[in-house]
Amino acid sequence: MSADGKLHLGAFMRPVSLHTGSWRHEAAWADANFNFDRLSYLAKRLEAAKFDAFFMADHLAVLNMPIEALRRSQTVTSFEPFTLLSALSVVTDRIGLVATASTTFDEPYHIARRFASLDHLSRGRAGWNIVTTSNPDAALNFGRTEQPDHAERYARAREFYDVVTGLWDSFADDAFARDAASGQFFDPERMHVLNHKGEYLSVRGPLNIARPVQGWPVIVQAGASEPGRQLAAETAEVVFAATPTLAAGKAFYADVKGRAVAAGRSRDDIAILPGAFVVVGDTVDEARAKRAHLDSLVHYESALASLSVALGVDASGFDPDGPLPEIPETNQSKSSRERVIALARNEGLTVRQLAQRLGGYAGLAFVGTPGTIANDMQQWLEEEGSDGFNVTFPWQPGGLDAFVDRVVPELQRRGIFRREYEGTTLRDHLGLRRPENRFFPE
Amino acid sequence: MSADGKLHLGAFMRPVSLHTGSWRHEAAWADANFNFDRLSYLAKRLEAAKFDAFFMADHLAVLNMPIEALRRSQTVTSFEPFTLLSALSVVTDRIGLVATASTTFDEPYHIARRFASLDHLSRGRAGWNIVTTSNPDAALNFGRTEQPDHAERYARAREFYDVVTGLWDSFADDAFARDAASGQFFDPERMHVLNHKGEYLSVRGPLNIARPVQGWPVIVQAGASEPGRQLAAETAEVVFAATPTLAAGKAFYADVKGRAVAAGRSRDDIAILPGAFVVVGDTVDEARAKRAHLDSLVHYESALASLSVALGVDASGFDPDGPLPEIPETNQSKSSRERVIALARNEGLTVRQLAQRLGGYAGLAFVGTPGTIANDMQQWLEEEGSDGFNVTFPWQPGGLDAFVDRVVPELQRRGIFRREYEGTTLRDHLGLRRPENRFFPE
Repeated sequence: MSADGKLHLGAFMRPVSLHTGSWRHEAAWADANFNFDRLSYLAKRLEAAKFDAFFMADHLAVLNMPIEALRRSQTVTSFEPFTLLSALSVVTDRIGLVATASTTFDEPYHIARRFASLDHLSRGRAGWNIVTTSNPDAALNFGRTEQPDHAERYARAREFYDVVTGLWDSFADDAFARDAASGQFFDPERMHVLNHKGEYLSVRGPLNIARPVQGWPVIVQAGASEPGRQLAAETAEVVFAATPTLAAGKAFYADVKGRAVAAGRSRDDIAILPGAFVVVGDTVDEARAKRAHLDSLVHYESALASLSVALGVDASGFDPDGPLPEIPETNQSKSSRERVIALARNEGLTVRQLAQRLGGYAGLAFVGTPGTIANDMQQWLEEEGSDGFNVTFPWQPGGLDAFVDRVVPELQRRGIFRREYEGTTLRDHLGLRRPENRFFPE
Repeated sequence: MSADGKLHLGAFMRPVSLHTGSWRHEAAWADANFNFDRLSYLAKRLEAAKFDAFFMADHLAVLNMPIEALRRSQTVTSFEPFTLLSALSVVTDRIGLVATASTTFDEPYHIARRFASLDHLSRGRAGWNIVTTSNPDAALNFGRTEQPDHAERYARAREFYDVVTGLWDSFADDAFARDAASGQFFDPERMHVLNHKGEYLSVRGPLNIARPVQGWPVIVQAGASEPGRQLAAETAEVVFAATPTLAAGKAFYADVKGRAVAAGRSRDDIAILPGAFVVVGDTVDEARAKRAHLDSLVHYESALASLSVALGVDASGFDPDGPLPEIPETNQSKSSRERVIALARNEGLTVRQLAQRLGGYAGLAFVGTPGTIANDMQQWLEEEGSDGFNVTFPWQPGGLDAFVDRVVPELQRRGIFRREYEGTTLRDHLGLRRPENRFFPE
């Protein structure tokens, strides 16, 4: 159960939607990648529904996929997160604004400065989703012929975090007196020069920006690997989990909270919010039909790649309109393969439907009525599968509007989601304390 | 004379003002470094006055200065340009938004992406002020123990420009069909993979963002050195000159326009806009008194450093309240020394007043009535000293309001400044054509 016994909700956003068929939906805003008015509408709707945060997914490359999948992908182009979230800070007052930024392909001085600036602009609503960027195509856009290995990326990320938070602590909160009479704008005694020299990074400092409103913007992470979980346990305040079932969620929740305690932190210092794809209908069947329609808009040839990966076998020879044949054991993770096979059997999906399901959105999904969705979310909360969710919508604006108009009131009626914001900053929403300045303790 | 025979005006902004005494002025907004409402007011005022652009100065470090100067400096902290200009794009419709970004301490993929995003957000109003960052303190914030030398910085800048503009050309304008029926979001045949491998940079591409509204954001530069002028002649569309006198302005103007023609461009492909500090009064004496008051707010001990540098001798032993003593010849540039000596003699300044003048704002200044200021600006325009100015204001909002309310109408009355915007993009304002896509010519 989360610290306050309530759900915390982020909106996991791509301008058009994460679902690869979404932009073809009759009522979708397919032009949202470069239409600020659309995104402004969505952010305001989420704020009116009292969401904790608007979370902008990001990539540092055009994603590498087969050309037939690429030509159908709405992911190829969109606003860059800092420019978009800065603009959204003007049209919103309360909702948190979380941007993804890479510790592998950016500089800590730039990252510290931009998040601090977004935090000042938004008066305390910024969050940093720390990613190490596993995409090898990104490396090629930044002068690297090969991707640094996993362990090195995580070691650098840990040091990068120390540097960024150290730069955020460059000034005491009371450093800036701006005393016109004496002429003292600030007190250099209340400024710290970091002088960091580490294994991967050398950064002198100080940052040329006052300490963020929140002290530090909220730290978000999504690592699921062993070093990813450990980094999260030591540093993250929100963990974006990718747990596909309640059982997996509970195991992950216990593991990461346990690691946090072992690292000297409190369980309540971390909110665990799995990604969840939510489709709302008047009946469960209607919601399923909505999803099936959306999945049918996914291109079969490209979806086949997702199915082949999930099963660990080449699925291109299967009869698209027949049932899933028997699948032999492979090197592919057993739980993933069995989950996919069970999905096909339980829902009676053809190979084509199964591929399109996985190619559309393969993770945790709540597909049903406001009541069944609220039941599921409440169960995750009460059984410690999560402290809430990063909700992603099947298409926009309709799928988002349905969640806001129908599911949120049901969660509020049950007393498991706020009716009003408790404070003004993202830390307030998440019940997180403001970190002490390590160089200027109170 | 500029291409359209009219002045082009940028506002060269720091949140509080560039003048080091400005924040102490009775009517100044000393808190503007982190007060978006203040900056929103200023940008809207400049837009209502039909300025071409809002130009955000920037640094990548807390500036290195003596501690007694530093504690009095409002430059130590402020919003970062991309976050600020993105937010300002929401509260304005027409004014250009120019950000400084470094070719020495940033990555071309990031720079290309952010400016493209700002250009999409603002519907064609972004400009990139290319700087190579000469400040050695910046190097220390980015893992360099020493600053790369001048020639190397400029060689890298030239290559960086090629990469960024190449990335902007990643997609043809018609690449994005978004045809829901066929499922084709875009045409990969209309996407170019840059595959740049050069002396300083390796960047594969494509950029994950559609071609900017302007094709390329407007290219701005301020280099005054030999390689700086050459880079500007080859690439810049706006040159931010630092010419302190009309004679210097005319020489610079002729040189850079000549180099541009030699490089195969047209004279009208570059607008030359010197920085100009403007103080408005009802009489010339009143304007001078306003400036003298502002200068008196500059700290003498820190101003002495500016005077010593300008003269090439240590001025700390001079009587602050006496006249400037005789100054021997030194290695310091003769024109700079003679200009400072003449300034002291002509205006009868004490050593203190002279130091505070130079420590406040040492460059080209127009101090007078709306009529004398318009006379000066018109003379620069007609005699080809410039195509306009990057105006900087003595304090904000008052100094900016005075320019907008009193000088702009006088320029309009004379027919040398627009009464309405001619178009919607920064290129439209400056009379610049949209660059052809090098990979997808029309």
